[in-house]
Order: sequence, then C-alpha cells, then structure tokens
Amino acid sequence: MYTAKAYSAASATSSLASTTIQRREPTPHDVQMDILFCGICHSDLHQVRNEWKNVMPTVYPCVPGHEIVGRVTRVGAAVTKFKPGDLSAVGCMVDSDRTCRECQAGLEQFCPNMTLTYNSPDKHLGGVTYGGYSDSIVVDERFVLRVPSNLNLAGVAPLLCAGITTYSPLRHWGVTNGKKVGVVGLGGLGHMGVKIAHALGAHVVVFTTSPNKKEDALRLGADEVVVSRNANEMKKHTGSFDFILDAVSAEHDINTYLNLLGRDGNITLVGAPEHPLPVAAFGLIFGRRSLSGSAIGGIPETQEMLDFCGKHNITADVEVIPIQKVNEAYDRLLKSDVKYRFSLDMASLKPE
Amino acid sequence: MYTAKAYSAASATSSLASTTIQRREPTPHDVQMDILFCGICHSDLHQVRNEWKNVMPTVYPCVPGHEIVGRVTRVGAAVTKFKPGDLSAVGCMVDSDRTCRECQAGLEQFCPNMTLTYNSPDKHLGGVTYGGYSDSIVVDERFVLRVPSNLNLAGVAPLLCAGITTYSPLRHWGVTNGKKVGVVGLGGLGHMGVKIAHALGAHVVVFTTSPNKKEDALRLGADEVVVSRNANEMKKHTGSFDFILDAVSAEHDINTYLNLLGRDGNITLVGAPEHPLPVAAFGLIFGRRSLSGSAIGGIPETQEMLDFCGKHNITADVEVIPIQKVNEAYDRLLKSDVKYRFSLDMASLKPE
Repeated sequence: MYTAKAYSAASATSSLASTTIQRREPTPHDVQMDILFCGICHSDLHQVRNEWKNVMPTVYPCVPGHEIVGRVTRVGAAVTKFKPGDLSAVGCMVDSDRTCRECQAGLEQFCPNMTLTYNSPDKHLGGVTYGGYSDSIVVDERFVLRVPSNLNLAGVAPLLCAGITTYSPLRHWGVTNGKKVGVVGLGGLGHMGVKIAHALGAHVVVFTTSPNKKEDALRLGADEVVVSRNANEMKKHTGSFDFILDAVSAEHDINTYLNLLGRDGNITLVGAPEHPLPVAAFGLIFGRRSLSGSAIGGIPETQEMLDFCGKHNITADVEVIPIQKVNEAYDRLLKSDVKYRFSLDMASLKPE
Repeated sequence: MYTAKAYSAASATSSLASTTIQRREPTPHDVQMDILFCGICHSDLHQVRNEWKNVMPTVYPCVPGHEIVGRVTRVGAAVTKFKPGDLSAVGCMVDSDRTCRECQAGLEQFCPNMTLTYNSPDKHLGGVTYGGYSDSIVVDERFVLRVPSNLNLAGVAPLLCAGITTYSPLRHWGVTNGKKVGVVGLGGLGHMGVKIAHALGAHVVVFTTSPNKKEDALRLGADEVVVSRNANEMKKHTGSFDFILDAVSAEHDINTYLNLLGRDGNITLVGAPEHPLPVAAFGLIFGRRSLSGSAIGGIPETQEMLDFCGKHNITADVEVIPIQKVNEAYDRLLKSDVKYRFSLDMASLKPE
C-alpha cells in the first residue's frame, strides 16, 4: 500500500476536506495512474450528502469522483494495454464479476456484482472504494480507458460519466445521420447530448425553459431551440421526433414530450426525477412510442465513445477549478451555475 | 346502395336496437360479404356510450363492431384476392390514404387519414362508417383479410382486434422461442396474449388478482400463474422477464412490473387506464428497461396473425350469443363476466 492525497467528506453534513488515503500497490493486472483532472458529477454531491441512503447509503469517509483522466505511472507485470506515460481514464466502475451474461456482453454496468469507483466494497483493501478526488488511483486495466491524444484533458474528464451517459442511449436507440433528436435540459448531461447527437449527424432540437440559453445551445451544435413553456412552439413539433434524450432531474411533464415523438419514437430518461412521472397511456399507444431509461455504458462502449470524441474533437465545456474550491462548486452546482461541468485540476493537490 | 340489417344506438344513453342501414354497392375494388360473426370489443361499448368524447366523439346512430368474420357474396371487377364463397374478415380499419410513409410500410394503423370500421367519416356515402353489428358489409379488398379454413369462425372474429392487438407487440418486441413473457390481466386481450405467446414458444407467466383464474390460465397455455397481490411471489420474478404484455385498463402499479423486467426488457400497454400511470424513473434506468404502448397492427401483420393462428389452431374462447342479447352482454362486460369474449352470431339477424 501507498499513501495518496485526497479530498473526503467525514459525514453527510461535512464539507469536503484534505486528507490522505491508502491505495493498493498495483497487482499484476493493475494500472496505477496520476490523476490530472476529475469532473464533478451531481452524483458526487448526492453520495457525499447521503441523499441516496435508501438505495446506496454512504460509508464515510467518502472520496467521490468518477470522471477521472490521468497518466499511467506504473503497470503490473501482466498489463498489456498500457505503459507508463500513457494517457488513461476511469469512469464510474472499477470492477465487475466478468463472468455473468452482462459482463460477457460487455455491459458491465448491468453486472449484479459491479464495483463502483467510490462507495462500493473494496475487494483488495476492505472498506469502500475511493474515487477520483485524489492525486492517484490503481485500477484493473480492464476498467481503464485509453484517451485520444488530441483532446483537452480537463474537458475529457466529464466524458467518463456525462459523455457515456448520453452517448449510450443515442447509439442504443439508433440515432444516425438525418434523425430528428430532441435534448431536454441543457446542463452537464444535456450539453454532451447536443454535441454527440450533432456529431452523429442528427437534426438536434434543444428544449429549455430558459430563453437565454438559446445562443449557447446553437453554439454547442443545436439546429433549433424550443422554449418548452411556449405551447405553440412545442405543438409545431408534434409527432416528429425519432428520439428524445431527457436530461432533466426536476419534475416536468413527460407527456408533452411523448406527444412530440413520431411512430416508434423513444424518450430515454438519463436524469432521475425524485417522484414518479405521471405517464398517459394514450401517449404511448398512439405511435407505438416508448419511454425508457439509461445509465452510463459498458467498458467497450465507453472506449468507443472516447474514440468517437477524439475523431470529432468533442470534449465537455468545463470550468477548471482547484480542488480547494470543491465545496463552493457544490453550492454552485445546486444553482446550475456552471457551463457546463466543473473539472478539478489535481495539480492543486500537489505541495506548493 | 342496398339495405342491410343492423343494431345501432341512437344516443349515448340508448340501448342498441334493431335497425336498417344503407351500404354501398361494391365498387370495382370492393368486397361485399355476409357477416357470420362479430366479436364484442370493449371499444364498442366506449364508443356507443360516447366515453371517448374528447378524442373521438360518437356520431349517432352508431353501429359498432370491428371483429368481423364472414363469407364473400360479391366482388368488384378489379378484385383479385377474393371470390364469392370465400371466408373473409375485417378488423378495425376499412381504409387509409395508402400513400403516406406508414401506409407504404404496411402500418396503416398509424396512417393519419385512416378510416375506422365505425364512427369514421364515410368517403363513399357521407355520414360515418357502420361496423359489424350487421348482416352485411362492403369493404375495399385491401382491408379484407383471408381466413384459414380450419378455424371455428365464432372464435376467429375476436382475432381481428384482440388477436392482432396482442400479436403485434409480442412480435415487435422480439418474443420468440425461450423468451420469458408475462401477461397482466386475463380478459379478452390477455387470454389471446397467453395463447399467442405460448404458440411463439415463450415461457408464459400470467399475473392475475384472482387466484381462481389459475386453472384457466394454465389451460390457455400459461406455464406459471402469479397472484399479483402476493408480494413474495412477485419478488421471485425480479429482473427476469424479457417482455410483459399489460392488458389491464384498471388502475394498477406499473412499477411493480417494471422491476420484474430483465435488462432491455419491455412492458407494452394494450389496455389504456383512464388516469396517467406514475412511473418511477429508476425502474427504467436500471436495466435500460422500456415502457411502451401498442394498438392493433397493420394489414400485412393482421394477415400474418391470422395465418399464424391457422397454423397453431388458435381462436379466442368465446361465448356465442344472438344479437338480441347484446345489451345484456354489455352489462356483463362491465363486470368481466365472460370467458373471454362475446361473439355475436349474425344468423340471429335473419328473419325467423
């Protein structure tokens, strides 16, 4: 074991504060990396504040962070994909059982024994896994991604969660050149959805409650922007969408969007509103529409997404901050006061 | 024009009563048929009583009936598919625009200009179309189906709505040999779902609130029956279904069933509860599950379904009644007091 610097929360009501944690020495299949940037995902805040206590209670101290990009420092003897000096990345998972039907299909996100990057039982050291708000991490090479060399690394970090969370359903539901795609909500997830759908060749329509987001949506790649509070504007799009990505966690009327779908159209939820959404059956029956959900993606698809982003020069729009500002960033996150993701510069963890 | 006997309702509060209606003389592409049996669908009752007034207000007099089976009596000069004496059938549609994207795809049920078998504007005679509670009907051959000769005709009639409504989503969502399929609700639609899913080779589980339906479900082709009020029994099936057909129109908790789906599993609603269903986002997000709806099917798929039923010797379980008992049958329908569909014997319309 060795000691790494990190930021952790001591309880649901504590601020994140500087600490040290133990990481394992690399086993034969492990990759050790220096973390260069780590994105701040809203999940980090939920977990730190134990807001998911009914499904995933938080074990403290909690070191969050699952949008990790860095550079390899050491590799185990059996590692074949990486060598010291390589760029590397880690997302929401660091292990799975590798034998189940899901793992065999490269869909590790559905493995019943999957290990999350933080707050999951740590098979090696006991306790729970510690995430990317740290200067170093050790992960089995099977869960380490390659990073295209042409991309800004601070903007790559959020691809590991926000990127794959939007890329996966766009691909799964067949978004290709010429399809009409809606993106509801222009935040951390939504802005990635716009960039990726645009790069896939879709006609992208952004739905937003804030008219002042229009210019930014167009800059990100939207072809049209619809202010969702304007019923007439919404009505013009009735029955016309192939796919809608719904990235809104706040309560909203999903039926309005179901009615915008064409035959066999799908809405996928990637935000998770706290309360059940009322769904009118007729909105699904007419046009054989469907409503579904999606969470991250498997390791092969995450690599595919990174390669796609490399090819199309896509990164997240980030505000780079030192880790010392993480608590302030959490407060701003709750006010959606960021365009569109915070990226922690881990150089700030080094001694001055 | 010629005069046909029929049963019609004069208003939303009237009983159905004997009447005569005008039918058109067959045009070159028309098939005229004697109606032998007509199933009673719950939609007939909704339409007759104007319960869909907000979306499809009823024009009176109303002659319902869209589960029609009969024998061809005359054909127009250009008709190629039928000759007098052939068995024939008509379902929920009698025309469409034939040029739109949906019609081109053989999905006439989604044509924006589709003509329903009853209560749609009648292009030929003005007024509205009259359905199958009658001794005769004239329909363009494109909307007339062939009927396998080996089937009991009284039991064929309900295939034209209840049969295709369940066959279509089972096929659309990929139910094949070895898939695990649930059917929620054992009524007119559900009992067809069980028979068809069984014939497709699926492992069929029926969910019912009535333990006394168990034997009947097994007889119809179910492999297992789960009493949905028994939470422990339900829990055993968590995450295991490929597809669930939900044929319940009454309020019920859809989230319980979403949790029974495996990865990429789908629930399709073919019943339409009056109020929106509360859907928990996490039930969709975990496992990339989806919720959708479906209504009847296109003409090519309806023919495919009839041929499939011929091959597998499938008909609806019907209680055959004379049309003079139709009002009594409606009362019993509201109490689910029929196993599992009424079929009107149109010989009862003939003079004694």
